[in-house]
Amino acid sequence: MSTSPFLRAGLLAAAFSAAVPAFATPQQGTGVAWDIVEGITTEIGPRPAGSPAEGRARVWGEAKLKALGFQNVRVDEFRTRAWTRGPESAALTAPYAQPLAITALGFSVPTPRGGLKAPLVYFPTLAALEAATEGSLKGKVAFIDHAMRAAQDGSGYGPYGNVRRQGPTIAARKGAAAVVIRSAGTDSHRNPHTGVTIFAKDVKPIPAGAVSNPDADLIARTAARGAPLAIDLRLEGKPFPDAPSGNVIAELPGRDPSLPMILLGCHLDSWDLGTGAVDDASGCAIVTAAALAAQNGGQPLRTIRVLWAGNEEMGVGGGGGADYARVHGSETHAVAMESDFGADRVWQVKFNTAAESQPLVDKVKAALWPMGIVPHEGEADGGEDVSAIIKAQNLAVIDLGQDGTHYFDLHHTPDDTLDKVDPAALQQNVDAWAAVLRVIANEPGVIGKGK
Amino acid sequence: MSTSPFLRAGLLAAAFSAAVPAFATPQQGTGVAWDIVEGITTEIGPRPAGSPAEGRARVWGEAKLKALGFQNVRVDEFRTRAWTRGPESAALTAPYAQPLAITALGFSVPTPRGGLKAPLVYFPTLAALEAATEGSLKGKVAFIDHAMRAAQDGSGYGPYGNVRRQGPTIAARKGAAAVVIRSAGTDSHRNPHTGVTIFAKDVKPIPAGAVSNPDADLIARTAARGAPLAIDLRLEGKPFPDAPSGNVIAELPGRDPSLPMILLGCHLDSWDLGTGAVDDASGCAIVTAAALAAQNGGQPLRTIRVLWAGNEEMGVGGGGGADYARVHGSETHAVAMESDFGADRVWQVKFNTAAESQPLVDKVKAALWPMGIVPHEGEADGGEDVSAIIKAQNLAVIDLGQDGTHYFDLHHTPDDTLDKVDPAALQQNVDAWAAVLRVIANEPGVIGKGK
Repeated sequence: MSTSPFLRAGLLAAAFSAAVPAFATPQQGTGVAWDIVEGITTEIGPRPAGSPAEGRARVWGEAKLKALGFQNVRVDEFRTRAWTRGPESAALTAPYAQPLAITALGFSVPTPRGGLKAPLVYFPTLAALEAATEGSLKGKVAFIDHAMRAAQDGSGYGPYGNVRRQGPTIAARKGAAAVVIRSAGTDSHRNPHTGVTIFAKDVKPIPAGAVSNPDADLIARTAARGAPLAIDLRLEGKPFPDAPSGNVIAELPGRDPSLPMILLGCHLDSWDLGTGAVDDASGCAIVTAAALAAQNGGQPLRTIRVLWAGNEEMGVGGGGGADYARVHGSETHAVAMESDFGADRVWQVKFNTAAESQPLVDKVKAALWPMGIVPHEGEADGGEDVSAIIKAQNLAVIDLGQDGTHYFDLHHTPDDTLDKVDPAALQQNVDAWAAVLRVIANEPGVIGKGK
Repeated sequence: MSTSPFLRAGLLAAAFSAAVPAFATPQQGTGVAWDIVEGITTEIGPRPAGSPAEGRARVWGEAKLKALGFQNVRVDEFRTRAWTRGPESAALTAPYAQPLAITALGFSVPTPRGGLKAPLVYFPTLAALEAATEGSLKGKVAFIDHAMRAAQDGSGYGPYGNVRRQGPTIAARKGAAAVVIRSAGTDSHRNPHTGVTIFAKDVKPIPAGAVSNPDADLIARTAARGAPLAIDLRLEGKPFPDAPSGNVIAELPGRDPSLPMILLGCHLDSWDLGTGAVDDASGCAIVTAAALAAQNGGQPLRTIRVLWAGNEEMGVGGGGGADYARVHGSETHAVAMESDFGADRVWQVKFNTAAESQPLVDKVKAALWPMGIVPHEGEADGGEDVSAIIKAQNLAVIDLGQDGTHYFDLHHTPDDTLDKVDPAALQQNVDAWAAVLRVIANEPGVIGKGK
């Protein structure tokens, strides 16, 4: 429909206007965590690793952490490999002309000048692509489908995310001129999901993009009709070396500075398509607000350090987490934790601690029971921002698992924006983290290493 | 998060693949209505008025209606004013650099070569813009916010849609160089809603675009901080005259051809951003499948004609509906109905009939009661595709009101795609329409005019 049948009713529009406030912002939150997410998304926005915006975010973060009363606020700068998006578009050209909503994957190389017009070969799974004959894709574009579905623990992202991580390398090995995948995402919007692909060292990188789920559905339906497919593909993003990045680090000193500290990680960089509200401004907001909240009732024994890491998204083991371990590997840490799975509620807790820390684990569990947070027998592993220091020092780890049912609706898309953050859920995270910190940062005894 | 903590689990990906079918199309429907929506969206896709794709859709529709057994299948061609999209982009440049998800409104004129860099002035409502001093927006871009919310009967689209319909004219009168509005939509995705704006004859058209709701939120939050805003705007879409369009018309003849016929309208054109699944392939699918379903149990007395109208979206009173009334105004019609409000379930029915037809109205109500469809005392008005013939012949009208709660999440966006159509809801529409048709197409007596 266009204007009828409602146009007539609409002539009364002016009558509606008087009661509208001067600014119609639909969602408001309060508190430290909300202010951080709101501030980063509004005043910085997209902040891809190695970009000037990521630099502005470091300046913003340093000022914010100082204003919140953190001590030893500083930026550890480092250099990194990065990638920048260019113009991008795609269309099916046979058997039907259909524009496609596409985005390049990080570390894609550019299509030839004028774009790439080529047959498109449909593979229902990564395994089907792997089974293709060597060289059979020469001059062609591979399309890789898959069937990722939403899961509360986000576990679909491991296997189905490999279509993005490994698919382009496999397609390149088969001789493909380029590769297009179904987004590693669980929504049904025309917003494709970006994210890095990891080209193996022995292959020459090819252009690689992801289409949205509705576009992937269209390709699958079209392929099922049996006629040959063709695509016109233009992806101009490209990698670049030696980009500036950095970690923002700040502390709330403990009463006993000789005790190993608690490290709380998150990442400051974001993908370029959205404003990185859930990935991962919310993580930085949660750990920072929780560190402050843990001071209520008295300064804890142990120092709590927050790490707002640079270049998590494109780091692939060499980003902010790795730089942190390099620079701070001689300092003593007791426990590492990370928040990087959105802004929905914490529903489970996992541990990686030595047997002698069972009493401490039990105290943490007891603090979380009243909040409806259940222990999970799986092993905590922290995440990209703290994994290098965990590995280097064999640290104890506690994971507060967030509800990821809707996380992969938003992950790495233009839709990762502030309106997706529920202020009440964000605060529940802060409360859960603070409850854990009040236990572990006040532990006077030795905290055992990880397993 | 990027790849950790799920990467390790993902190494088992191959184990998942064996059970996946050859084509992983996530949603399947059956039946005539589904086949029509699936076919148009897959084989034609976007089909804006006046475009070659709209012409392909007419060819497709003619063949489909013949294949389904309709008689007198024909295309009435006509010429129309139309509009075509060009490259488009926008970014806030002050006080913060932020890309904006924008799309031009139909009948926008292009921004100057190289784009338009100008101050952006925030207006919370259309009324606030109307209150601005004449000439006060010279050299500036107006931003018009609003507060449209979802409603089951879609009633928000009247008043809030006026921001799109009338806002650009009002901004032009105040001297604005361009205008940007909050999309007339109820979703929170980075997919702005297009749709025509209607420039009054006494104003010089200006470039006009809509940003998505999350982008409008960002502009509102930024404006609330108090510093001046600026925008870099590029909208290259432009109108063009004398484009080809046409109506596809087909009939299922009644047993008594002397009785005035039943006219069922929908529109074949769509906006260019999506594939027009809910707006309005579903409408054409519903009326067509229902006309066929009404034959079950015996050929009805009256002829049922379906009208798949061209150029509803840009017609503004001069599209396919007007052409139909011009060409077919001498033929006798009894009742006109239209389906153009998506694919969700029918929940209410409205009438516009003369008092002497109350027994017929009661029969229709009785047929719908068992389906949970409630009568509404408001007056039926059909819609853009049938309104001209209704007006010309003072026809009786029946509106089967669909649930519009989610319609304006999708309306005129890239997200208007097949996956949004629930096959069961689509079939419920067909069943409801067929129930009505079995009553009215078998009415032997005079069917009174509209009020």
